[in-house]
Parts: sequence; structure tokens; C-alpha cells
Amino acid sequence: MVRLTYKYYYYYHQLSTITPTDSTKPPTTMTSPFTPTTPPRIKNTKGLHLLTTSTPNGKKVQILFEELSAKYDLQWTTTLIDLDTDEQKQPWFLALNPNGKIPLLIDNNPHNPSSPITVMESSAILLYLVETYDPDHHFHFSSSSSTSSPVYKSQLLQWLFFWSASGQPQQAGLNHFKRFAGVVVDSYAIEKFKTETLRIYNVLEMHLSNRLTGDDGGGEAREYLVGEGRGKYSIADINAYAWIRAWKRMTISEEEMGRFPLLRRWVERIEERPAVRRGVGEGYDEEVHPELLLTSSTGRS
Amino acid sequence: MVRLTYKYYYYYHQLSTITPTDSTKPPTTMTSPFTPTTPPRIKNTKGLHLLTTSTPNGKKVQILFEELSAKYDLQWTTTLIDLDTDEQKQPWFLALNPNGKIPLLIDNNPHNPSSPITVMESSAILLYLVETYDPDHHFHFSSSSSTSSPVYKSQLLQWLFFWSASGQPQQAGLNHFKRFAGVVVDSYAIEKFKTETLRIYNVLEMHLSNRLTGDDGGGEAREYLVGEGRGKYSIADINAYAWIRAWKRMTISEEEMGRFPLLRRWVERIEERPAVRRGVGEGYDEEVHPELLLTSSTGRS
Repeated sequence: MVRLTYKYYYYYHQLSTITPTDSTKPPTTMTSPFTPTTPPRIKNTKGLHLLTTSTPNGKKVQILFEELSAKYDLQWTTTLIDLDTDEQKQPWFLALNPNGKIPLLIDNNPHNPSSPITVMESSAILLYLVETYDPDHHFHFSSSSSTSSPVYKSQLLQWLFFWSASGQPQQAGLNHFKRFAGVVVDSYAIEKFKTETLRIYNVLEMHLSNRLTGDDGGGEAREYLVGEGRGKYSIADINAYAWIRAWKRMTISEEEMGRFPLLRRWVERIEERPAVRRGVGEGYDEEVHPELLLTSSTGRS
Repeated sequence: MVRLTYKYYYYYHQLSTITPTDSTKPPTTMTSPFTPTTPPRIKNTKGLHLLTTSTPNGKKVQILFEELSAKYDLQWTTTLIDLDTDEQKQPWFLALNPNGKIPLLIDNNPHNPSSPITVMESSAILLYLVETYDPDHHFHFSSSSSTSSPVYKSQLLQWLFFWSASGQPQQAGLNHFKRFAGVVVDSYAIEKFKTETLRIYNVLEMHLSNRLTGDDGGGEAREYLVGEGRGKYSIADINAYAWIRAWKRMTISEEEMGRFPLLRRWVERIEERPAVRRGVGEGYDEEVHPELLLTSSTGRS
């Protein structure tokens, strides 16, 4: 408990105090998100660059990049951020994302008038990528190509926010508190977050079942969260899958997950995709690819 | 603790079991979100209808409706949902929103090809409303009207997700656990959520200060979260304001809030808006307007 509490306060006070003493602050108006201490590996990158760590939120964007690469041969480069040494809390990183979190996207592409631009928040990165680099709407929905698409476009946002704002915090809470079971936290917090996580899984199960409403599928189970009939694989699925795939590590038992057969099949359906396997795979493992770490190319700044 | 725990399990099991025994399920394929037990007040409404309770998430949408009314004379009707009697967990409500939460929007307007449509998740409702009913972009950003707008459009999404996925769950956790201080929960959970809430407030303070990056304002403090220079009031502000306005009730002291002078001024700046005052005001108070309750017009279903 002491260690974690210290870490929280450390982040907080660090963020409070770095600004006045940050001698790297650019002296004049500029639109560049880079500071003199931004590592050259980040500053000099071309095109799309992803700063990530293979956490659930990192995996979301890794998966989408692999999917876009398979469909469009989209090119990008990656830096793996070392969370253990708090690289994401350094001033140069906070200048890119004041929240000090991965994933973070830098887009240097020339068709962006304010290039380079930065995008924070994993779900916002998914939306930015499909709106900019998925013109055929493989992983999202057009607002104009058919009469019902504006509805699906809104449903995509609804299920993105459902997972990111209502679901993910429950599973993240469970993940946090279960580590302290029987030590410093009483069981109330663990029980609360576990029950809420199962409730959220059940909402997804009911949605996939099509049983709560007639809906488009007419009672036939859905395969994906959004889209006509059985649905179409989209960033709404990627956004939730990257977390729910880890259900076993959340102290959720086989029996408990057995109550959600459609959700479980949805997890299996998504993890069969080659791009998904690459997105969660060893291509983003720092032990397999130490050359993707900042420290391997620039030294600790 | 027993009461709350029971309530969580109750929701969970209720949602698990209602479906097979819900005799109100429409027997055939249909696109209507209504069931035979949907209250007539909801089913027969015309135009835009908001199901809300004046919680922080309800207030977000109430504020935007008041703003759109002031700019465009937009018309809508409201039903206040009684959370104490779990109206939002009834089968007819779950058919509208499987998550069983307010606010919920129903749009019966004829220019929606799949009318009526339902929109869940407060942030997704904000986006739906501005994209459909704010053609002049008073409260959001165009993707085409100027060269930098696509960037602001993405920044709007980033700050919406920042608050809804990263900020709001921390303040909601603090709000939940502080009620049990000294009773059943040890202080760890309270300390964790309070520290994280203050960290998030600090991220907003730093963003408003323009000190972490050169940014557009060139060091001049921002007035609003997104937009050129000092920024433009938008749904990103409404989304976060509806929660942060209640900081005093979150056991946050004057001294603690004093560390965030720009954030505090931002709260005061927003609460001066007449539409905001109406959106959080007695127009949505069930004691002042019992005629907006379901029970006053239809009886408990």
C-alpha cells in the first residue's frame, strides 16, 4: 500500500511542479508538440508513430494498426514506452499528452494541415485512425453511404463510450483491487468491482443475444456489437476485446464466464483474426524487440 | 454494505433472468425499441424525448438541450426517471438501453430514417445532438469549414474520452467510497480515488495553463478545453463541468481546489451561462415538477 500510494502522490506532485522548473519549455509560440528533451527517435520520426506498451489500452491501437496494415498496407513505426521507469511521466511526454498515459499517436503525414498532430486516449485514437485511414469503412461506419449508416455511426460511438466509460473502469478497478485481496483492502471493493464487471459482461451478452429488443437481427444472435443484422466487426469490438480477452486474469472463474456464452464466442471469434493475433503478440514485446525501446536508441534522457 | 451489495447482485440477476420470462417481448422482427409495457408517456412522445434524472450524467444532456434551445429554439420533452424505485432497470427501459442507465435519448424526428432511434451513454448523446441539431457548430467543431478544424474535431473527442473514461471514473469512485469512510471500507480506496481525482484535475489545470506545450495560445491560459487560442465552449466542457462543479461534495477542500485556480475559474465561467443554470436547475427537480415523473402520468407499470 505504501509503495502504491507514494506512486500516486509522486505523479501528482511531479506534474504540479515540473512546469515552473522545466527549462525545456519553448520560449515562443509554436505548434510543435516537441521540446528540446524529446528523444530524437520520437522527434525525427516520419509518418505515423505509435508510442505504446502492450497493456489493454495499448493493444487496442496495436490491433487496429495491424488490421489497417492488412487492408491498406498502412505503414507506421512504434516506440515501446517503459512504464516501470515512468517514461510516460517525463516532461517531453507530458508535452505530447498531459495525462501521461500510453497509447499516444503522432501523425506527421503531410495531408494533416497542422502536422505533426498528437492524439491521446485509446478510443479517440481508434476513431482518428479509422476516420483518417479507413476510407472504405472496413472498421467503422459511413455517415452518408446508406440510409441507416448515421444510426450505426452513433451506435459505434455509444458502444465505444459504453465500454470505455462504463465497462473498462469496472474491470480496471477489479484488476487493481484483486491484487490486494486479504492484505490491506477489505473485500468490499473487490466484490463491488467484480460484481459490476460481471454486470457489464451481462449487458454485452444481452446485447449480443438480441433478446432484449427485436433489433435488426430479429432475435438471431449478433456476432459483433454494431451494424446491421449480426453486425460488422469494428473498432467498437476492438475497444472492448482488448480488455475482455484477459477475463481469466480478473479472478473470473470458468463457471462465471459460462453465464456469457455469446460473449465468450465473441472473444474467440475476434482472437482468430490474424491481425488481432499480431496486435497482441510478440511484435510488441520489449524482451523480443528491445530495439523498439527508447533506451536502446537514445539512452535515458 | 449488505444493502449495496444486495443491490448490485439484484441488478445483475435481474438482467440475467428477465429475458426468458419477459412475456412482453415482441414476437416478431421489428425495429421499434418499444415493448407492450413501455409507458405510454414514453411510447407516444413526438420529436426529441429525454429520459433523465438530475445526476451529473443527466445534467450533461440537460445543459446541452438548454443551450440548443437558446441558439436554435430546439424543442424537446422530458421524463424524470425515479432511480430510487429502479425504473431504469425495468424490462421496457432495458429494451431502450441494455445498460439500465440514464440519461437516454429517444429521437422520433422524421429526418431520421430509422426513426425512432435511441441513444445511450451521456457523451454519445452529446455527440449525437450536436451532429444532428447544431449545424452552425456552436458547441462542436466542423470537419471541413477550415484547415485546422479536423484537428479540433479530434481534440473534442480526445477531451470527451479523457473525462468520461479517465476522469469521471475516479471522481465516481471517490463519490462512492467516501460515503463509507470509517465504516466498512478501509481508507486505501478513498485515498486512491481522491488522489487520482486531484491528479486528473491537475491535468486539466495544466492543459488550461498552456504551460506544458507552446500550443495555439502561446502560453496564454485557455478559457475552454478545445479550440483555437483560448478555446471555444463546447460539449467537451459541458461533459466535464457537470461532474467537476460538485467538487465540494467530493471531500475536496478549498485548499486542495486552490491548487487549480484556472480550473476553478473555468467552473465559474461555465456556471455563469444562463443555459447552464437552467440545465442544472429546478426545471429537472422532481419535487418542483412531479408532472415530469412517470408515475404521475401512467402509474407504476
